[in-house]
Amino acid sequence: MNYIFLLIVGLLTMSATSYAQLSPAVQKVREYRMAHEHTIIQEFREFLTLPNLATDSINILRNAQFLIRMMQQRGIANVQLLRGTKSSAPPAVYGEVIVPGATRTLVLYAHYDGQPVNPSEWVEGSKPFAPILRTAALDKGGTTVEFPTGPTHFNPEYRIYARSASDDKAGVLAILEAYSGLRKSNITPTINIKFFFEGEEEYGSPNLGDILATHSALLQSDGWVICDGPVHQSGRKQVVCGVRGDVGMEITVYGPKRPLHSGHYGNWVPNPAQKLATLLAGMKDAHGTVLIDDFYTDATPFTQEERDAIRAIPHIEEQLQREFGIAKPDGAGKNLLELLNLPSLNINGLRSANVGTMVANVIPTQAIAALDLRLVLGNDWQRQIGKVKRHIEKMGYYVLDREPTDSERIQHSHIAKVRVASGYNAQRTPLRHPLAQSVVKAVQTSSEEPIVVVPTLGGSLPLYLFESILKTTTVTVPIANHDNNQHAENENIRLQNLWNGIETFAAIMSMQPR
Amino acid sequence: MNYIFLLIVGLLTMSATSYAQLSPAVQKVREYRMAHEHTIIQEFREFLTLPNLATDSINILRNAQFLIRMMQQRGIANVQLLRGTKSSAPPAVYGEVIVPGATRTLVLYAHYDGQPVNPSEWVEGSKPFAPILRTAALDKGGTTVEFPTGPTHFNPEYRIYARSASDDKAGVLAILEAYSGLRKSNITPTINIKFFFEGEEEYGSPNLGDILATHSALLQSDGWVICDGPVHQSGRKQVVCGVRGDVGMEITVYGPKRPLHSGHYGNWVPNPAQKLATLLAGMKDAHGTVLIDDFYTDATPFTQEERDAIRAIPHIEEQLQREFGIAKPDGAGKNLLELLNLPSLNINGLRSANVGTMVANVIPTQAIAALDLRLVLGNDWQRQIGKVKRHIEKMGYYVLDREPTDSERIQHSHIAKVRVASGYNAQRTPLRHPLAQSVVKAVQTSSEEPIVVVPTLGGSLPLYLFESILKTTTVTVPIANHDNNQHAENENIRLQNLWNGIETFAAIMSMQPR
Repeated sequence: MNYIFLLIVGLLTMSATSYAQLSPAVQKVREYRMAHEHTIIQEFREFLTLPNLATDSINILRNAQFLIRMMQQRGIANVQLLRGTKSSAPPAVYGEVIVPGATRTLVLYAHYDGQPVNPSEWVEGSKPFAPILRTAALDKGGTTVEFPTGPTHFNPEYRIYARSASDDKAGVLAILEAYSGLRKSNITPTINIKFFFEGEEEYGSPNLGDILATHSALLQSDGWVICDGPVHQSGRKQVVCGVRGDVGMEITVYGPKRPLHSGHYGNWVPNPAQKLATLLAGMKDAHGTVLIDDFYTDATPFTQEERDAIRAIPHIEEQLQREFGIAKPDGAGKNLLELLNLPSLNINGLRSANVGTMVANVIPTQAIAALDLRLVLGNDWQRQIGKVKRHIEKMGYYVLDREPTDSERIQHSHIAKVRVASGYNAQRTPLRHPLAQSVVKAVQTSSEEPIVVVPTLGGSLPLYLFESILKTTTVTVPIANHDNNQHAENENIRLQNLWNGIETFAAIMSMQPR
Repeated sequence: MNYIFLLIVGLLTMSATSYAQLSPAVQKVREYRMAHEHTIIQEFREFLTLPNLATDSINILRNAQFLIRMMQQRGIANVQLLRGTKSSAPPAVYGEVIVPGATRTLVLYAHYDGQPVNPSEWVEGSKPFAPILRTAALDKGGTTVEFPTGPTHFNPEYRIYARSASDDKAGVLAILEAYSGLRKSNITPTINIKFFFEGEEEYGSPNLGDILATHSALLQSDGWVICDGPVHQSGRKQVVCGVRGDVGMEITVYGPKRPLHSGHYGNWVPNPAQKLATLLAGMKDAHGTVLIDDFYTDATPFTQEERDAIRAIPHIEEQLQREFGIAKPDGAGKNLLELLNLPSLNINGLRSANVGTMVANVIPTQAIAALDLRLVLGNDWQRQIGKVKRHIEKMGYYVLDREPTDSERIQHSHIAKVRVASGYNAQRTPLRHPLAQSVVKAVQTSSEEPIVVVPTLGGSLPLYLFESILKTTTVTVPIANHDNNQHAENENIRLQNLWNGIETFAAIMSMQPR
């Protein structure tokens, strides 16, 4: 442990801070939190009952208005909705705390929208927007308990289950409660704080650039700290200096124009699910290596500094294999962190006709695969999509971005409709950047264990926008438990992670002045 | 046309009947129907509003009770529910008309249960159990019209849309209305008629054998005439002497135990949808030929007589390709009828996580494929399933019939759960069998065009049971339009097909005494 930590410390040229020493500000905020757990959770529950799909325009505004009230109640100044040129898009919610004499301004970012939900997939008796308290993770035998009705000290292993409980309303709450804790403890932040809560991150942030450009003067800062994603799988806090880019695509292949009886036509009418299987199978080999031409060629390798940081990170592959039930990972022997610096191609979903109790003996009319491509430094999302499209064409497909016409169907034996969502590129802040160093140092003062410094997360955030539009840089400080089911059914936050997250951001707000 | 017909006539050694001559009984029943279209359709609509999934035990009984009333109102004798030893299974509905002096007894079969429905797949504004009248097929621009409120003569190109409108409540109605027509026209049937309406055909007839065995004395006959499936795609009436067998299976392959963020783990955690695609892709080549070892080896080829009959059937492949929008059929150049005498493997449905508006950036926990295997003479359904299972094992899978345990997950990189539904074998009655010859001759008296005689249908019915349990034989006389969307959303019956079906069964009930 010491050895690993010293490596990180060495790398980042920190020396004075002992990792076993919590800062006084963090200690005060912990006392504040322990005295107010009931009201903190009560407000969080209320927040989680608001459905928050970015495209659900009425509900997403209800979330924004809820946030405005939260911020005003905390004495945050200049609270407002930030919109770009498209008034129908979910607004960002902004507020600020200007500290006399502070020489540094950081923008603290989280997002209040969530991933789509399919309520039928959530464990029986639960609903994505009706938060449930459980004694532990579902797969560890967690059972439902009532939320307490009065002041209490929660078992920190308890979890709250709801959409966005961790991704990313936990981030919003941790930032706001960190400020509450400092304020109620009469501790003045050492930096100017700007709060920025986005409302369409899970939808690919199509309007974030527009919002940043429209409000670039208001958003002047020395850097952004992004609160999103999970802490390291070892349970340690982490600071992340980069993210992968992401772009989603959907491939539809076609069978007969109407569903046909599989008996009357089976063997003669081509089956679209069979075609899709063949198309997808040809995209990866048995090790999960993508077989599409030039798929890996644009990727920029890690620098020496980044490789050193990677080596200092504890290996958790064996733990994860047990936890996920995986006998053999993909990647032909490369470790997880190496693989996260390669672009990926993932099937997110498949659909053709029905299975289970709804199955019927048909030849389906179409089969659909949803894919997402993760991108690393050097990849351009449109170029990456182009490689996949060319591959589909190479497999003999006539590629369209709309439904085929009758005459196209009769001319082309293989037709694929490819729809591409808006995507974005990867971003990485050098480990030696002053923002990275200050944040690492600050976060370390909120942890009794050495924190983990990661050159790039596997997940994605549209961080390239901050560089390209605001000419500023970012570091990411995640707080959620890694087993949080984010993006899926039964999403949850472990209370200890929420508590730790509050302390993490209190440490950032009270970081050592430069 | 004449040439083809003469071939069929020659083959079946019929000589006296001219195909252009409708029998007097058929003419009378046509007059009856034309005078009663409104009430016929009114009763049919009421029948179609009853949900009829075999496993929906309350509703399936409501259908049976409705049938009992229909039969009693028509003066059919000895009407009763037939049950086997399992009282919870859907009963068959039985009735009889014993004709003094008749030397032949035929059982007329149809089924009153239907395929599962996914209402969300039906065209907007329609529900599977709320029949809708349309002016033509949906894909031919058919528009919804109100059902008339009083006596009327329907445009025979109109269609009724509802689950089981063709498969197979149309069969039930055609048989009962054929009898009504004869009775109201004071024409005595030439045969003893036993009516047998099954209630779980679409569920694989798990209790049919039991019901037949339990009531074998009551069901004594000279053969069964099965009313199910569509007429020939050319629009001509057809008599079918065999059916394929069928068995359904579901394959589930596994990814991580919980859904994982595709960013944090993409490239490292194996994707179950990718695995399933690879597994399915390996089952068929580019022509749709099944690559599973010995898949085709048990199939009994057509006899010379059957090959001759096949040659007499009009080719409709080009018409179907246009209709279905298919540039290139499967089968490596073999025609549709040849291919229907080969076993098939079809993907009926695929499912893994979500696509479309519900898509999330996850690595799914599992991926499911529903398959059905059609079987021909010579195939045993359990042996055929065994070949597929061995193939999956050969592809490196550990095959289970239940969910894997945690320790199995960590031991085996490829795990497949294979669930097999109850299946049954193919059946074929020789074309020269007296029952086949009598029915062909009778049906021809109800058609102004030469009818089509088919050695085997591509579809399936559990007809082997009649041979094995009752030591009797069957021929199938379908009546539905071939473009009826049976087994799928927007199922429909074209009214002219319903009218023709009534006449077909009137002709069978008044067939020439032997």
